[in-house]
Amino acid sequence: MDDGGQRDVDAGSSPTVATGGEFARATAIIERPSDSGGGDSRAFGAFVHEGWDIGGHANGGYLLAIAARAMAEVAGRAPLTVTAHYLAPVPAGPLTVQVATIRRGRRMATLSASLVRDDRRVLEVLGTFADQTAEPVLLCDGSPPDLLPYEQCADPVAADEPPLPALNERLAVRLRPGDDGFRFNRPTGRAEIAGWFGFADAAPIDAIALMLVADAFAPPIFNTGLAVGWVPTVELTVHIRGVPAPGRLRCVFGSRFIHAGLVEEDGEIWDSAGRLVAQSRQLALTPRV
Amino acid sequence: MDDGGQRDVDAGSSPTVATGGEFARATAIIERPSDSGGGDSRAFGAFVHEGWDIGGHANGGYLLAIAARAMAEVAGRAPLTVTAHYLAPVPAGPLTVQVATIRRGRRMATLSASLVRDDRRVLEVLGTFADQTAEPVLLCDGSPPDLLPYEQCADPVAADEPPLPALNERLAVRLRPGDDGFRFNRPTGRAEIAGWFGFADAAPIDAIALMLVADAFAPPIFNTGLAVGWVPTVELTVHIRGVPAPGRLRCVFGSRFIHAGLVEEDGEIWDSAGRLVAQSRQLALTPRV
Repeated sequence: MDDGGQRDVDAGSSPTVATGGEFARATAIIERPSDSGGGDSRAFGAFVHEGWDIGGHANGGYLLAIAARAMAEVAGRAPLTVTAHYLAPVPAGPLTVQVATIRRGRRMATLSASLVRDDRRVLEVLGTFADQTAEPVLLCDGSPPDLLPYEQCADPVAADEPPLPALNERLAVRLRPGDDGFRFNRPTGRAEIAGWFGFADAAPIDAIALMLVADAFAPPIFNTGLAVGWVPTVELTVHIRGVPAPGRLRCVFGSRFIHAGLVEEDGEIWDSAGRLVAQSRQLALTPRV
Repeated sequence: MDDGGQRDVDAGSSPTVATGGEFARATAIIERPSDSGGGDSRAFGAFVHEGWDIGGHANGGYLLAIAARAMAEVAGRAPLTVTAHYLAPVPAGPLTVQVATIRRGRRMATLSASLVRDDRRVLEVLGTFADQTAEPVLLCDGSPPDLLPYEQCADPVAADEPPLPALNERLAVRLRPGDDGFRFNRPTGRAEIAGWFGFADAAPIDAIALMLVADAFAPPIFNTGLAVGWVPTVELTVHIRGVPAPGRLRCVFGSRFIHAGLVEEDGEIWDSAGRLVAQSRQLALTPRV
């Protein structure tokens, strides 16, 4: 399987692809008609790029974004609600995305996707895609996290130690002061992490990128003081509630229930216009302690 | 397709099936080896019973329970996180449940399921199933809704008018006084509904039944005063965080974001021992107004 060409896919012509930017290139997909199953099944090539990982394992939101991009391409619509189940850690290298259309309706389409590496499924996704509508906000019981200006928030990359996941070099993330305390043995004691999100190359953030955002912050369990370590995601669901206005996002992630070796993590993602653009919830294994 | 026999399936011998009770009978499944696809695919017959519906459409949690029961049977484990996408309304009658095993690991298994009616997929499910563990509670940032004793809560069935969905006759649901205000043109103004859940026949509530519980209360949007009507679920995810202790459940459902024709609904389900046993979140279409 030769996927070297994926690296240079020009995805700028698709409505589901953010034009330009490192993230768009790192999540580019290209159809492989010869591998498509016919009927309602289509196959795409993709390439898990170096540098979107946590300790060599590709970030879960990044992988979901690759799958969602292929699903959106087949649906011809933007993601509305997408759920991924994580089957195995994924290193850099070529992937196949198998997309099946389950139902195509007038307003919405439901599809499944599998990320396949070396003939083994590593991620399974189920999602519904829909045309964006511009109906008004009827209820908004919440608000963006109260953050200091971006420049006054904590820059995880600025500290030399401890080392950060490679992923952080691709992102312009700034944390609410104190929320990075877990890195310096000063956890806040509260399972919450808030901060700004942008891309390091200032690329625009589209609906597909929101999948990455939903899994791009450190697990809030780190700030409980209970444990810091690998928190493998079992399942991640993202509701896309709008296309972000240009500019950085304000995000907050929190965990409320940790028991039986599992932790849930809820996220809210707000755009520069103060609109909720995504909600996320994942179920993950607690770090081994 | 002759499914009449489903009605009398004796499911008492399976660990995933609540022994006895109307709900266990109404969600019983029976394998159809002749329809199984071989390999990792197995087929079951099921029967959507009368009386588990809202205006002739089977309740979404009830349908998910049928799928989850078949998946748990194949997995040999209890549900941990299950997501359903709703493709079409489902009237009473026979169904086929197609279950495929995606990955079977040491501790967890991931499966997909389709509910098929008249050769048409009506529900698509993706879930991970796991052995229960008894590790301790490390964080519980929440508590059961503060409810008056069951007998002092509002009995939706007691009022003659307006008519209730048939589903309610199968359930012993009591609402926090006032939370039923939407039925009498007195919405609370707050998108929240809390109450007790039990089965009318006092059958025990197992992990599969929690799927029903997650969709058994009236949509909290009804109490906003914005709209009362059909709220079709697009997607429902349930995290099963424990097996309920015997007794009634305390539940609370709320919506915080209503825009672009969509509403999210979050649920918490607590058992008689005061433990969180499930969290749910769904994305639904707002009623047409």
